[in-house]
Amino acid sequence: MNIVLLGSTGSIGTSTLKVIDENVNNFSLLLLSAHSNYELMIEQCKKYEPIFAYLENKDSSKILREGLIHSGSSTKILNSRKELNEVIAMSDTDVVVAGMVGVAGLEPVHTAIASGKRVLLANKESYVVAGELLNELAKSTGATIFPIDSEHSAIHQCLEGSLRKKDDVSRILLTGSGGPFRTTDSKLLDKITPEEAVAHPVWNMGKKISVDSATMMNKGLELIEARWLFDIDNIEIIIHPEGIIHSLVEYKDYSVIAQLSVPDMKIPIAYGLGFPDRITSGSEQLDLLKIGSLNFYEPDSNKFPCLHLSKMAMLSGGTSPAVLNAANEVAVSAFLDNRIGFLEIHDTISFVMDKIDQNSVKEIGQIVEVDLLAREMALKCIENI
Amino acid sequence: MNIVLLGSTGSIGTSTLKVIDENVNNFSLLLLSAHSNYELMIEQCKKYEPIFAYLENKDSSKILREGLIHSGSSTKILNSRKELNEVIAMSDTDVVVAGMVGVAGLEPVHTAIASGKRVLLANKESYVVAGELLNELAKSTGATIFPIDSEHSAIHQCLEGSLRKKDDVSRILLTGSGGPFRTTDSKLLDKITPEEAVAHPVWNMGKKISVDSATMMNKGLELIEARWLFDIDNIEIIIHPEGIIHSLVEYKDYSVIAQLSVPDMKIPIAYGLGFPDRITSGSEQLDLLKIGSLNFYEPDSNKFPCLHLSKMAMLSGGTSPAVLNAANEVAVSAFLDNRIGFLEIHDTISFVMDKIDQNSVKEIGQIVEVDLLAREMALKCIENI
Repeated sequence: MNIVLLGSTGSIGTSTLKVIDENVNNFSLLLLSAHSNYELMIEQCKKYEPIFAYLENKDSSKILREGLIHSGSSTKILNSRKELNEVIAMSDTDVVVAGMVGVAGLEPVHTAIASGKRVLLANKESYVVAGELLNELAKSTGATIFPIDSEHSAIHQCLEGSLRKKDDVSRILLTGSGGPFRTTDSKLLDKITPEEAVAHPVWNMGKKISVDSATMMNKGLELIEARWLFDIDNIEIIIHPEGIIHSLVEYKDYSVIAQLSVPDMKIPIAYGLGFPDRITSGSEQLDLLKIGSLNFYEPDSNKFPCLHLSKMAMLSGGTSPAVLNAANEVAVSAFLDNRIGFLEIHDTISFVMDKIDQNSVKEIGQIVEVDLLAREMALKCIENI
Repeated sequence: MNIVLLGSTGSIGTSTLKVIDENVNNFSLLLLSAHSNYELMIEQCKKYEPIFAYLENKDSSKILREGLIHSGSSTKILNSRKELNEVIAMSDTDVVVAGMVGVAGLEPVHTAIASGKRVLLANKESYVVAGELLNELAKSTGATIFPIDSEHSAIHQCLEGSLRKKDDVSRILLTGSGGPFRTTDSKLLDKITPEEAVAHPVWNMGKKISVDSATMMNKGLELIEARWLFDIDNIEIIIHPEGIIHSLVEYKDYSVIAQLSVPDMKIPIAYGLGFPDRITSGSEQLDLLKIGSLNFYEPDSNKFPCLHLSKMAMLSGGTSPAVLNAANEVAVSAFLDNRIGFLEIHDTISFVMDKIDQNSVKEIGQIVEVDLLAREMALKCIENI
């Protein structure tokens, strides 16, 4: 299987390479791409000898070129996004691992889905903002999506590789740790500092995602993502602080299937690469005896009102999720810069969602437009706080 | 789908009829059979109008015949086991629900498997004593086995309808409540009375099964059953007192799939009848928030040495499981009659297993023979206690 790995120098990228290391005979790397980390990219090109490599940053790309020439590498360096998209779409490409961060990932993900590839999707923004559109596109091209995050991969596995008919499913139970403030008194939430918000109990994550975890917006975005990935809108969030059960699917006979593991992205990656077979992931074995106890609580939508906003955006569909996502990005950034308080993240998003009319989405350009509009609106709102 | 329902007046039989009530348009009853409960059988024949009915007890069969003639029923009453087996094997029969109790169920289960049917197997004795043989037979005839007990149905579901390749699986985790004496001090076990042993914490069961639960032999027998049902011998027992996770399958990527539900046999039955689709079971929905916490402990083989005996029997294969099962039945019966103590159940089985040489099994007659031999031996051992 020929793999195009987008975001090879990041966390998902390096985990993907570790899974490939465990299964060297089954996979070969067609392309490695990243933003600007030329040092690691040079190392990776030497080790994996991909046919193509690409760095988005022009200066870094130059250094990469020199470095590879120096080492006698035969890897061809791509010069533009256009060339990158051509490699994604070419018939030799079997699997596209979309490990890059942010809405910037939308274009290559769109290309991969439009050309009917198997897509390992770590770039959750693309399905949050354009899930409805990408879902329709995947149906028409036969592209298959394997989400690379613990919750959605769990749901995919509980649905037997998404092969289960929608009609068999009663509801999806999306689990979440509840974030670092699950047990904090509601009255103290407005005093939370950026430093307090970025300390996550289970996963070691970036600042933006840590704040999303603290507001529980991460779970709200996952709700929207799940709605389009699985074309099911009966989804409930359940708090499970241990983070061992990564989600559950309840079938119409009221049998519930759950997926459990240690928290390790190599498992969703190995699942997506190996499907329909299981392959070695290099992850640790789960020890339920050591963990001892798994607990469940109801999420508190009053305390974490971002959950409510995201549920509304999920049910509205159209441009709403993109507006929610853009406003949230701006608000979180302002919170991290100490320009607004913790509770004002919600207020900003709510303000922007009220101001922008929901529209149905016909093409990807609309998403880009409404994303910009929502960001402007959010900045204005923050100036007035 | 045409269903042959063996043991229709028992607990599995009546649960099966409830599932059929929920899905009246998908199933019709070809045959109802039971041991002797003519009153309920007459009622069932009136309601479901099966083509055939059979009662094993001759006197009860006569009353059934009179009752049905009286009510103008067109149901034909079978006169012998031979006729029963003919109906099981006939081409109109799609599904055989084996809900009858004890080793007596072995013959009709054998017939159903030999004729390549879908078999819903509640009769666990047949797979405990003759699993190796039945497993080979099912492979050659294309019969499919859907176990009707919570643990094995859970494993079947976690294996995606047993469609998963053995090679994908790392191990099976078979859960058990730990029985009523999980937290009892080992030193007090020899004082346990039959009355204390028959009070089970989760399931309301018969006396024999309750004692098996108390000695944990039920889990040992399930271990043997699972080994042949799924052709996998890497099985570990894990104690889970809440009885909500009914078992788990660990794949080679160390992703673990679990099945959860309220304890209700209608779920395994609906799963077996509807497969590959899910159908309404009439079971209650699982409420994880109400349950709150799921706990896990290591089983204590020193305290419950029957676990050790059954593991040995599983690994030996051949006639060993049949010897274990027969000796256990006799020992439990003696315990219930106050002829031996609680700990002497294990001692009796261990004695018998030591005395009878393990042989490989070529035909079902061997099982019947070794079963009788083990019972004799167990009785002798008990006389000497």
